[in-house]
Amino acid sequence: MTVSTNRPRIGIIGTGAIGGFYGVMLARAGFDVHFLLRSEFRAVADDGLHIDSAVHGQLHLNPVQAYVSAEDMPPCDWLLVGTKTTANADLAPLIARAAAPGAKVLLLQNGLEVEEALRPLLPDSLHLLGGLCFICVHRRGPGVVVHQALGAVNIGYHSGPLHNDESARQALVEEGAALFRQAGIESHAMANLQQARWQKLVWNVPYNGLSVLLRASTTPLMGDASSRELIQTLMAEVVRGAQACGHVLPAGYAEHLFNITEKMPDYWPSMYHDFVHQRPLELDAVYACPLAAAREAGCELPTIRALYQALGFIDASNA
Amino acid sequence: MTVSTNRPRIGIIGTGAIGGFYGVMLARAGFDVHFLLRSEFRAVADDGLHIDSAVHGQLHLNPVQAYVSAEDMPPCDWLLVGTKTTANADLAPLIARAAAPGAKVLLLQNGLEVEEALRPLLPDSLHLLGGLCFICVHRRGPGVVVHQALGAVNIGYHSGPLHNDESARQALVEEGAALFRQAGIESHAMANLQQARWQKLVWNVPYNGLSVLLRASTTPLMGDASSRELIQTLMAEVVRGAQACGHVLPAGYAEHLFNITEKMPDYWPSMYHDFVHQRPLELDAVYACPLAAAREAGCELPTIRALYQALGFIDASNA
Repeated sequence: MTVSTNRPRIGIIGTGAIGGFYGVMLARAGFDVHFLLRSEFRAVADDGLHIDSAVHGQLHLNPVQAYVSAEDMPPCDWLLVGTKTTANADLAPLIARAAAPGAKVLLLQNGLEVEEALRPLLPDSLHLLGGLCFICVHRRGPGVVVHQALGAVNIGYHSGPLHNDESARQALVEEGAALFRQAGIESHAMANLQQARWQKLVWNVPYNGLSVLLRASTTPLMGDASSRELIQTLMAEVVRGAQACGHVLPAGYAEHLFNITEKMPDYWPSMYHDFVHQRPLELDAVYACPLAAAREAGCELPTIRALYQALGFIDASNA
Repeated sequence: MTVSTNRPRIGIIGTGAIGGFYGVMLARAGFDVHFLLRSEFRAVADDGLHIDSAVHGQLHLNPVQAYVSAEDMPPCDWLLVGTKTTANADLAPLIARAAAPGAKVLLLQNGLEVEEALRPLLPDSLHLLGGLCFICVHRRGPGVVVHQALGAVNIGYHSGPLHNDESARQALVEEGAALFRQAGIESHAMANLQQARWQKLVWNVPYNGLSVLLRASTTPLMGDASSRELIQTLMAEVVRGAQACGHVLPAGYAEHLFNITEKMPDYWPSMYHDFVHQRPLELDAVYACPLAAAREAGCELPTIRALYQALGFIDASNA
């Protein structure tokens, strides 16, 4: 694999399914990519990263520029964060350590207010962006990621030195989207990150939660009349919550995601994997924050709240 | 055991936990009680009925006047029906066969519209009543019922020859309540059966459904902040649905049942037992009918609907 040194250096913080997939795709496109790992370091250092992709075939990155400590990483221009939102506070020092001056930190995470929670913990000189991944991936084992379908990343600017320079912000978001496109990945610059996050919630709120609540993947959830109605109700409430918070989603957006899911291969959302591995569920980012934001705007979302409460019980029992 | 022949003859249709418990209590009080059984006939004919009661101690009725066919039963003045509502259509011929002229049929079942569904299938000469059981019982094995707590039966008149004679109807309901009281069981005559059914739903809607959805009995459900909120929301929606349908429940009724449940021994509601034994869940009577009645009255109950839809998925997967 050749490394083009005039390209930005990319650091992957948290090499799970998301970080592993996008990192390998970027490295494959010639970017200089450095991977921070924890439990999987030994496996990846020994045998590299494997992507078993239904779209791109079998990809194998070996050797991998892998690290167990952010202190050993070279300064990175872009940092892609693919960890769970439940660990963000712990990540801030690692991110600051691995960042080049003026680096761009891109949170590839779901939910609301993930940037707001991380921002006060980061140096002011860093740009913070959010990326919403429309992708079906999961970890099969140490260093092995299965990519079933899709892959697009929608990017928006959150905060940093360009906060008041609209056109420079847009250029920076475009630069991020261009990175992904150069790696063969669909990517769109989003003018409004909060709206992009609400849009992604239209998918995550129903499917993540119901996969845990009903121990079911997308195919059975889409194959039963009761769960279909429940999914549609949950989607409609997210759209209503977004609207109450000032984000009018594109017309027919919920139907669009519903139809995409119908055509997807059978998929277990990430929250189900968290549940099975007894990790904390991302309930704050995906449920509590949107519910609080909507309530603040005078909008109750009773079906989402019921799902959140049921998941709260499951999460506590599962700990 | 002595049998007093000048007392009404009682038939138990469906000798599960409910039918078994009340039948043995009535037989123990000297009533002439006849039990219709199916799969458990052999065990009960051989070794009688056992009640392991935390309130009344160990009760053993042996021999039992047990039957596999309603044709073999003597004509009964009162018929207590303790089967699942999901089987009511099949029961009508058995009830008609076992009934003495002018007999009283008492449905000891939860949910709405269970009498409405059965009524057209019964002879006009029979009285139909509903009984709401506030009791913690379950079957431990063939002919063995565990009684953990409570026991009260609230009775109301539904339909029959006395439909237009208010005071005669009241007298008949009182006669039913007196039967139970003579057996040491708290029993109240309810002026309005529909209201009594809505009141019972304040308990059944949250606890039956959540026990299946969250695979949890009452103690953990009452011990977690999220599920407590969910229970209270569900209870409040039942109260609201009842009110929309013209039934103003007693003030503080939901709080009363919530507090009772907090003091109860740990209990798995009957719907959980149905789920575990892969029997159909009583979703029509406990969820669909109340939702439809409230919607008809212009009242949406979104949390109950979400629970119903989630249970619909589980019920279909469990079949």
